[in-house]
Amino acid sequence: MDFAHSAKAADYLARVGDFIRTEIEPVEADYHHELAAMDDPWVVLPVIEELKAKAREAGLWNLFLKAESGLANVEYAPLAELMGRSFIAPEVFNCNAPDTGNMEVLHMYGSDEQKKRWLEPLLRGEIRSAFCMTEPDVASSDATNMAATAVVKNDEIVLNGRKWFSTGIGHPNCKVAIFMGLTDPDAHKYARHSMVLVPLDTPGFKLERMLPVFGRHDEPFGHGEVSFTDVRLPLDAVIAGPGRGFEIAQGRLGPGRIHHCMRLIGLAEKALELACERATQREAFGKPLANLGGNRERIADARIAIEQARLLVLNAAWKLDTYGLKGALSEVSQIKVVVPNMALDVIDMSIQLHGGAGMTDDFPLAAAYAGARSLRLADGPDEVHRGVVARIELKKYSS
Amino acid sequence: MDFAHSAKAADYLARVGDFIRTEIEPVEADYHHELAAMDDPWVVLPVIEELKAKAREAGLWNLFLKAESGLANVEYAPLAELMGRSFIAPEVFNCNAPDTGNMEVLHMYGSDEQKKRWLEPLLRGEIRSAFCMTEPDVASSDATNMAATAVVKNDEIVLNGRKWFSTGIGHPNCKVAIFMGLTDPDAHKYARHSMVLVPLDTPGFKLERMLPVFGRHDEPFGHGEVSFTDVRLPLDAVIAGPGRGFEIAQGRLGPGRIHHCMRLIGLAEKALELACERATQREAFGKPLANLGGNRERIADARIAIEQARLLVLNAAWKLDTYGLKGALSEVSQIKVVVPNMALDVIDMSIQLHGGAGMTDDFPLAAAYAGARSLRLADGPDEVHRGVVARIELKKYSS
Amino acid sequence: MDFAHSAKAADYLARVGDFIRTEIEPVEADYHHELAAMDDPWVVLPVIEELKAKAREAGLWNLFLKAESGLANVEYAPLAELMGRSFIAPEVFNCNAPDTGNMEVLHMYGSDEQKKRWLEPLLRGEIRSAFCMTEPDVASSDATNMAATAVVKNDEIVLNGRKWFSTGIGHPNCKVAIFMGLTDPDAHKYARHSMVLVPLDTPGFKLERMLPVFGRHDEPFGHGEVSFTDVRLPLDAVIAGPGRGFEIAQGRLGPGRIHHCMRLIGLAEKALELACERATQREAFGKPLANLGGNRERIADARIAIEQARLLVLNAAWKLDTYGLKGALSEVSQIKVVVPNMALDVIDMSIQLHGGAGMTDDFPLAAAYAGARSLRLADGPDEVHRGVVARIELKKYSS
Amino acid sequence: MDFAHSAKAADYLARVGDFIRTEIEPVEADYHHELAAMDDPWVVLPVIEELKAKAREAGLWNLFLKAESGLANVEYAPLAELMGRSFIAPEVFNCNAPDTGNMEVLHMYGSDEQKKRWLEPLLRGEIRSAFCMTEPDVASSDATNMAATAVVKNDEIVLNGRKWFSTGIGHPNCKVAIFMGLTDPDAHKYARHSMVLVPLDTPGFKLERMLPVFGRHDEPFGHGEVSFTDVRLPLDAVIAGPGRGFEIAQGRLGPGRIHHCMRLIGLAEKALELACERATQREAFGKPLANLGGNRERIADARIAIEQARLLVLNAAWKLDTYGLKGALSEVSQIKVVVPNMALDVIDMSIQLHGGAGMTDDFPLAAAYAGARSLRLADGPDEVHRGVVARIELKKYSS
Repeated sequence: MDFAHSAKAADYLARVGDFIRTEIEPVEADYHHELAAMDDPWVVLPVIEELKAKAREAGLWNLFLKAESGLANVEYAPLAELMGRSFIAPEVFNCNAPDTGNMEVLHMYGSDEQKKRWLEPLLRGEIRSAFCMTEPDVASSDATNMAATAVVKNDEIVLNGRKWFSTGIGHPNCKVAIFMGLTDPDAHKYARHSMVLVPLDTPGFKLERMLPVFGRHDEPFGHGEVSFTDVRLPLDAVIAGPGRGFEIAQGRLGPGRIHHCMRLIGLAEKALELACERATQREAFGKPLANLGGNRERIADARIAIEQARLLVLNAAWKLDTYGLKGALSEVSQIKVVVPNMALDVIDMSIQLHGGAGMTDDFPLAAAYAGARSLRLADGPDEVHRGVVARIELKKYSS
Repeated sequence: MDFAHSAKAADYLARVGDFIRTEIEPVEADYHHELAAMDDPWVVLPVIEELKAKAREAGLWNLFLKAESGLANVEYAPLAELMGRSFIAPEVFNCNAPDTGNMEVLHMYGSDEQKKRWLEPLLRGEIRSAFCMTEPDVASSDATNMAATAVVKNDEIVLNGRKWFSTGIGHPNCKVAIFMGLTDPDAHKYARHSMVLVPLDTPGFKLERMLPVFGRHDEPFGHGEVSFTDVRLPLDAVIAGPGRGFEIAQGRLGPGRIHHCMRLIGLAEKALELACERATQREAFGKPLANLGGNRERIADARIAIEQARLLVLNAAWKLDTYGLKGALSEVSQIKVVVPNMALDVIDMSIQLHGGAGMTDDFPLAAAYAGARSLRLADGPDEVHRGVVARIELKKYSS
Repeated sequence: MDFAHSAKAADYLARVGDFIRTEIEPVEADYHHELAAMDDPWVVLPVIEELKAKAREAGLWNLFLKAESGLANVEYAPLAELMGRSFIAPEVFNCNAPDTGNMEVLHMYGSDEQKKRWLEPLLRGEIRSAFCMTEPDVASSDATNMAATAVVKNDEIVLNGRKWFSTGIGHPNCKVAIFMGLTDPDAHKYARHSMVLVPLDTPGFKLERMLPVFGRHDEPFGHGEVSFTDVRLPLDAVIAGPGRGFEIAQGRLGPGRIHHCMRLIGLAEKALELACERATQREAFGKPLANLGGNRERIADARIAIEQARLLVLNAAWKLDTYGLKGALSEVSQIKVVVPNMALDVIDMSIQLHGGAGMTDDFPLAAAYAGARSLRLADGPDEVHRGVVARIELKKYSS
Repeated sequence: MDFAHSAKAADYLARVGDFIRTEIEPVEADYHHELAAMDDPWVVLPVIEELKAKAREAGLWNLFLKAESGLANVEYAPLAELMGRSFIAPEVFNCNAPDTGNMEVLHMYGSDEQKKRWLEPLLRGEIRSAFCMTEPDVASSDATNMAATAVVKNDEIVLNGRKWFSTGIGHPNCKVAIFMGLTDPDAHKYARHSMVLVPLDTPGFKLERMLPVFGRHDEPFGHGEVSFTDVRLPLDAVIAGPGRGFEIAQGRLGPGRIHHCMRLIGLAEKALELACERATQREAFGKPLANLGGNRERIADARIAIEQARLLVLNAAWKLDTYGLKGALSEVSQIKVVVPNMALDVIDMSIQLHGGAGMTDDFPLAAAYAGARSLRLADGPDEVHRGVVARIELKKYSS
């Protein structure tokens, strides 16, 4: 048992950390102000493209993809944590969701043609993508509820349905969505669905509205509600062929949840740092806040909660690397329960220490809270993941 | 001991409840959509004035003010709960904060002149007002930190300082703010401050910006950051004379906290109702959500938490009526700790049951969460109120 | 709405409070030491009989029974709270469980003969009784699981089965148990069971063992595991006739849960008092414990939790008085969830403030913890009561 | 980063696990029954000596001591977890507290003479020892409070004072206690105290009483209150010389806390196993308990909490191995906060699933609860450890 980072991971950690500190953090507040002041904030500000170019040049690019970076999940995870400290870092390093998951899917399951058309520009950071899975009219926690259809008709696949929480679909560079729909209701329940690449200019696709999440639109990415009405595409738009949607979705989820969770841990670390700064610098009743009431206990609890959560995620990443997704099913669900709840607690504590200011956008805390809260629902609500953990636990006892 | 409402309270309860159900609820969703669609949402939509006129005609007007309605705190409290179910009801019944507190202050401490100029149009619902207490640069939980000044110079009082979280200051009808500042640093610590009525068109007053609170501006009321630079007013703008600011602030807080807490209880009831509707109507894994996992336990816990909190507030209101603020100090701080935290738990549970939809504005839950969260800080953070409760508790044991 | 005690309740409160302070508290520690030092602690020490005589003489006797005291539940509840502060007070006032419930049952359902033989000596405090409901081999939370039988054969009723957690059965004066068993499996599910009065010297009855509860036997009352093997009794030992067991059990539960909960509130108050004494008297790091870390916050939270729980119980008692058990079903289950958990939190906090001493028997806290913990299971576990609350809540939404 | 056990640790894990399953678990229930039935339970039953002999023969002996076993803390930790599943396993493997800590102290700081007289028979499992640190009359969480004295007079050291929670002092083989007392109040605060080896037959030493902890005496070890009245010993009874008590105490604490925490994790695992067995085997309302309400969620939460806590302890052990105690200060305090609280939650959940049976001694749960609860106080209460964590955290922000 060895809790030290590999030499390679340690090297990337130093370099990504440096880049964030010297290139991103000094400009991030200005970036947000500039964006907030725009009439149309659904744009990519020039600073983003400049930072992307620098990151790419520095070799800090596409680190999430083992085929590119050679990094195992347990090595990439701490880099994702660093990126999670900043709202813009993931895009700067071309490591932002849902593009990361979409690129993995294309890397593993895409045809040469699909790779050339979509994966390559994604890897170059030229375009962005969306993932259309969740539906407004059914409980998406139960995948068998899915109502959207992807029906094969001759040499075409025809898509119909309504999706929402399609993250990133508002981005001006978003050019393609991966749509999941029911193809064959009579097939085995894991062979009924297909994943289809939908260029956003395909007739029948419509962006109905952008959804506010806890009052925010998260420009320029955003979360869209979209409709597909008789969207017709050639069969080669189907990833890996009809009926393989579930299989692909499964493979996408393990690393994706590791990434989400590690970014949240970075956000929680950032929130704790802000809390400590506030607690040592602000005074009331003649003392720094750190010396009032239970504030130190809360800071200690936050530190402990972050450490526990990080170790749980790193262990899950190591299991995923070592035993594959099947050998890490419970672990991946465990982190999906623990980390967003932990992050919410830490961020909320930090907000409280900041007083009213913590609720405004003068600090990144209210936005962090909204982001962390959405991850108690996205990619499966807590309740479903607890169900997975319990099922695996109890299986040992069934006679 | 009798937990039944008085006949008078019961009658108002029926009438206010009816009015909300028949007049307000049917139009509220449209109101929010209409407002959200406006380029400038800092307006009073006509429907609000129509509803105000109806409420006034129905005798459901200014119920918070005992001198007007004859209702004790314990009788008004359940009406405030009903109003809290809706974002617009408090204004419709002319019972919204901070106007209620400001009207009470003017009623109790205002000169005839002040009453005529400000109280009367407030009571008629013609103008709105703000309250400028909290400051951005100091921990406002410790009132002795207050940096703003209200200095008497000859027959004028001169105001300087910066305030924020001045709620309602964005309202187009907001005409006056009550400002609190330091007048005499050498006086007894409870006789140092003054409260001054500041017409918003007074030179030197500036609305610096509107603050987002958890991503929302709460138009058309809003929360402002404002500056006072050599604002000069005649001495008769001071309420009850220089040095009485603390005394007035104290009197304002008891009923105000009762109102806030009861409105939050209404909001929590609304959130629980929505949760129950969702739990019985939405299905996953072949069952209504109500029959999955711990959902029933969470609904039970919400019901129990609301009941406990409501009784605590009603008891505090009764103590306030029976023994005055001094006899209800601990109770008022107790409710200020319990109720916002309880409401947050219930609203969060309801959001989780709603899935992604709960985070959007398709339901009033995300907005309710932001509102409840801000009340863990406004009017004193949890920590300060726990300190009050503990101080009173431990006093019994000091030798 | 009026939170003041009735004159009658206030008078009893003063008198019971006085009696506890002047007669019971001064001797209680000695009582426990004396008992702990005995080889056979299953005895009634003389001081108990002396105190009982004094209480009876003072008219502070059988206050739980409205027919005797004229006190409504909402009036008796605060007296039960006072008694709950002491381990011996309930017996001193002849108000201890399960005798109170058994006396109520006999009062309401007993034949004249049953009353004469059992109720009268119970009311005089001459004998004690037990209640045999829970079974070791089935989940007693589901009453339809009950395996014990009470079969009518000619003019006899024949009892078979095993029961446990028969509280009080170790008491030297315990002379009778009320046994519940299945009489007619084909009857309506609420008409299948009978309650039978079993003199403890009846052949076939056996006290198998006394159960430790969290390491304690709670002498001289105790919790027994008992067996009934072909116990034959004349039919007039059946309370209210065969098949009425459920009906009787239901009626017994409402007031019984009020009593349990109020006694626990008294125990929590006692624990909080001890915590405050310790916090103000003990020093570490140069300060009284009260001024260290989050201790004040914990004391405040305890005060708040007790207040909320007490109001919830009083309201439930008032509902029971006003609308009967059917009108208070949710409320009675609510208190059964809230109060033991609240008491455990407060007692645990107090133990922690006492350091190691809190875990020993030098303070009544460890014993209090065990007692409160058992009430999360006795009379229905938390989970079943949450189920009742949720069922009633959701019924409003069923179409 | 590698979460796999070393080959050596894996080998011991298999062997210790086997031994517990085949040798200890089959006899443990009988052991407890036999002991419980004895008039004098302060004895070592023959089965213990037999098991000790077998364990020693199998080379599963003194594994805690690196000098004997060659195992690093991170390698021994999972073995401690296995031992913690059973109440008797630690003694069987000669790895029980406080002997382990005492042996470490003698190994590191003892003179040859001290080693020969005390360490060797301890390592052979022939004698047992106690540790006398905590005092009844002062808050021991603040070590500077210590009132006991160890005064050098000529060639003797004279001990006075009262200690309690001297664990193991009731064991019939307990022959020696390590006493800590104040030697030189004028020295630097970390050089004031001495540790002295006190044979229990030394005049002036008195075992005042055995303390019940949550109603249990934990025979045959027990927790004693002891007095030292002019206990005179030659100076060579002082470990490492006068004034080095603090230094020695510090070194003792790191590994000791790792051991305590890992044993508790084993206990929590055991409690979770029992919960799962109960949940799958017991039925109510026509379903196994596992399928009722929130039971699965609670099982999932327990699994997650155990995993997080275990990783935190293993990481702390690795830090201790890699960077020494100074490099693991925060980590050691973190586990001391997390693990007992986690274990209490899991055990309590398991008790609740067991119904009344969980509170009796038919299952090891009530005893486990008492043991885990005492570790929220022993070796420093939660509050002190949170203080350490916060201090280290905030140090980064001090200017």
